[in-house]
Amino acid sequence: MAWLTATYLIDSEPERIEARAEALAHEQSVECPLEAIADQRVLDEIVARVSAIEPVAAGRFRVDVQIATQTIGSDPAQLISMIFGNCSLWDNVQFVGLALPPELLARFPGPRHGVPGIRALLGAPERPMTNTAIKPQGLPVSELARLCRTFALAGVDIIKDDHGMADQTYSPFVERLRACQRAVREASAETGKPSFYAPHLIGPPRALRERARIAREEGVRVVLVAPLVIGLPAFADLVDEFPEFVYLAHPSFGGATRIAPALLFGWILRLFGADAVIFVNHGGRFAYAPPECAAIASALRAPWGALRPALPVPAGGMRLERVEELLDFYGPDTMLLIGGNLLIAREKLLERTREFVERVEAYGRAASGAPA
Amino acid sequence: MAWLTATYLIDSEPERIEARAEALAHEQSVECPLEAIADQRVLDEIVARVSAIEPVAAGRFRVDVQIATQTIGSDPAQLISMIFGNCSLWDNVQFVGLALPPELLARFPGPRHGVPGIRALLGAPERPMTNTAIKPQGLPVSELARLCRTFALAGVDIIKDDHGMADQTYSPFVERLRACQRAVREASAETGKPSFYAPHLIGPPRALRERARIAREEGVRVVLVAPLVIGLPAFADLVDEFPEFVYLAHPSFGGATRIAPALLFGWILRLFGADAVIFVNHGGRFAYAPPECAAIASALRAPWGALRPALPVPAGGMRLERVEELLDFYGPDTMLLIGGNLLIAREKLLERTREFVERVEAYGRAASGAPA
Repeated sequence: MAWLTATYLIDSEPERIEARAEALAHEQSVECPLEAIADQRVLDEIVARVSAIEPVAAGRFRVDVQIATQTIGSDPAQLISMIFGNCSLWDNVQFVGLALPPELLARFPGPRHGVPGIRALLGAPERPMTNTAIKPQGLPVSELARLCRTFALAGVDIIKDDHGMADQTYSPFVERLRACQRAVREASAETGKPSFYAPHLIGPPRALRERARIAREEGVRVVLVAPLVIGLPAFADLVDEFPEFVYLAHPSFGGATRIAPALLFGWILRLFGADAVIFVNHGGRFAYAPPECAAIASALRAPWGALRPALPVPAGGMRLERVEELLDFYGPDTMLLIGGNLLIAREKLLERTREFVERVEAYGRAASGAPA
Repeated sequence: MAWLTATYLIDSEPERIEARAEALAHEQSVECPLEAIADQRVLDEIVARVSAIEPVAAGRFRVDVQIATQTIGSDPAQLISMIFGNCSLWDNVQFVGLALPPELLARFPGPRHGVPGIRALLGAPERPMTNTAIKPQGLPVSELARLCRTFALAGVDIIKDDHGMADQTYSPFVERLRACQRAVREASAETGKPSFYAPHLIGPPRALRERARIAREEGVRVVLVAPLVIGLPAFADLVDEFPEFVYLAHPSFGGATRIAPALLFGWILRLFGADAVIFVNHGGRFAYAPPECAAIASALRAPWGALRPALPVPAGGMRLERVEELLDFYGPDTMLLIGGNLLIAREKLLERTREFVERVEAYGRAASGAPA
């Protein structure tokens, strides 16, 4: 018998925390009163157990619950359901930690490329990396392809669709994919520096799969996916079926949960196969504090069984002026994503994007002690 | 040009609410500073607009945002992304309302059966309905089938898997499906009253589809699915591909602190095709207040374009003693789900379940003025 440990923060009066923790353990396993269970094996092997309760603040406790791995198998959907299914509906419970025993962890291959695969693809063994988005949605395909070309000429490593782009009439998926892929490839051939276009794959599973197939046919190497929008199990399935793509995970719809950001955007997305994870950086349009951002980046890169490290991609209203500060904070195993703050340059877009690329790469040279 | 209206509660100082509302509108459409947009058509047709800001409490505002339907098409994943993608990541924003213009609503068929289809299937034109779950997980298939038989003999309308049941070694999906389906069918033939077994379909899309196919082959008519676990777009896809099933939606992983419960479990699940929605009732193991529960039930049944009404299934620690109170609260277009509170009867399970069925049906007879 093996058990995983899920950790929760529970707000409770001290005299009720033991009962609340037990109730959570039952909710996440047998979902019925213990008195309704006659089978001793179920009581011994299936009922989840509270293994630790620790006060962390006034009226708040950190609770470890051990959940039997035989309730999960290797199904990613069932993993979600067992660790944070029903108890996600409880007030004052937040899911903050997950420790998988080696044999369960071994069933999840995690990132198929991760940091080393992305660095190899980009020909960037050490330096921090750059990312931008073509936007706004609503532009015709020809305009989007022109943006792709400009960004690739400026040397951006990965040029992604804005995550609002799907298969709209004003820029149909296949047409956009072909035009942008070609624009980036041609510009990259001109500069001699590899740049990659990452189309956004979104939709119900059958549409998603068809779009992934087309992207593969067109030679796409990197794709953008929002795992919480399409559903974590659908994301895991896509990674499994199309392991050749580098998966850049977008955080959209990820706020609709009570999962700690580092757990969701760090550990869980990596477990399910994201190679690089976009998350909302401190000081931008979103409210995560620096320690939360550091915890996400750390979870993505920390040693974890045989899983490859995934690449942190802080984003969300980043400004060019912050490049060095961000790299001081995150270190070189980082891809910076700046979008709108490049586009405000309008007709000077190529120059401003070049400055972005140059500042990131200069930082990398300085950090590695290479000549400038 | 058509626009949907999404409504949010935003906590803000009064002097900042206009700017915050505008920022949300831009986040949910063009995702970049307006100054970066040169294309007049994008400014006119794609940028979302704040159409109303109304104070609802000290420091809290109700904000209506109009989002262009051309950004969505008919993709359920893209709908999620556009109405509550990035802004789900903002502190102090809750998504509380959605009004779709008729031509967008017409692209979502909603429940394929809904209340009328379920009533026809069950042969129950007016009375409230009953539901129970086989549990706990961990029991061998033979035990689960025995529970199914007992519940069907007692006359429960729908007998569902506990949502913790997947494809575990102790009760493999196909074996369980066949045994439980047979047990219910045979017992139902003995009583002459229709009862239906609802297996839990869970997994990544390819596994899900395969399991749905098997369930269809085995003559299953009702299935249990947790749309937030498998992902809303995967759920919509399943409903689209297997429209013959009655879909009973489970709320697991729906701990959406920032989506109003009535919006998520009422409007959105119905929009995506749930025929019946399990939600956590007041006074049980979960914390929803009575007005929230009433709002969920009301959203499921309210007139809404051409969409069939969906059936409310209040659940989560319900007790037999509350049957009449619950039916007073919800009315007869309701299916009551009691699980563990039946199982505590152990060897008297048949009798206690019969009492459940009889009390619900007696309530229906009294309400319709039929002879007892």
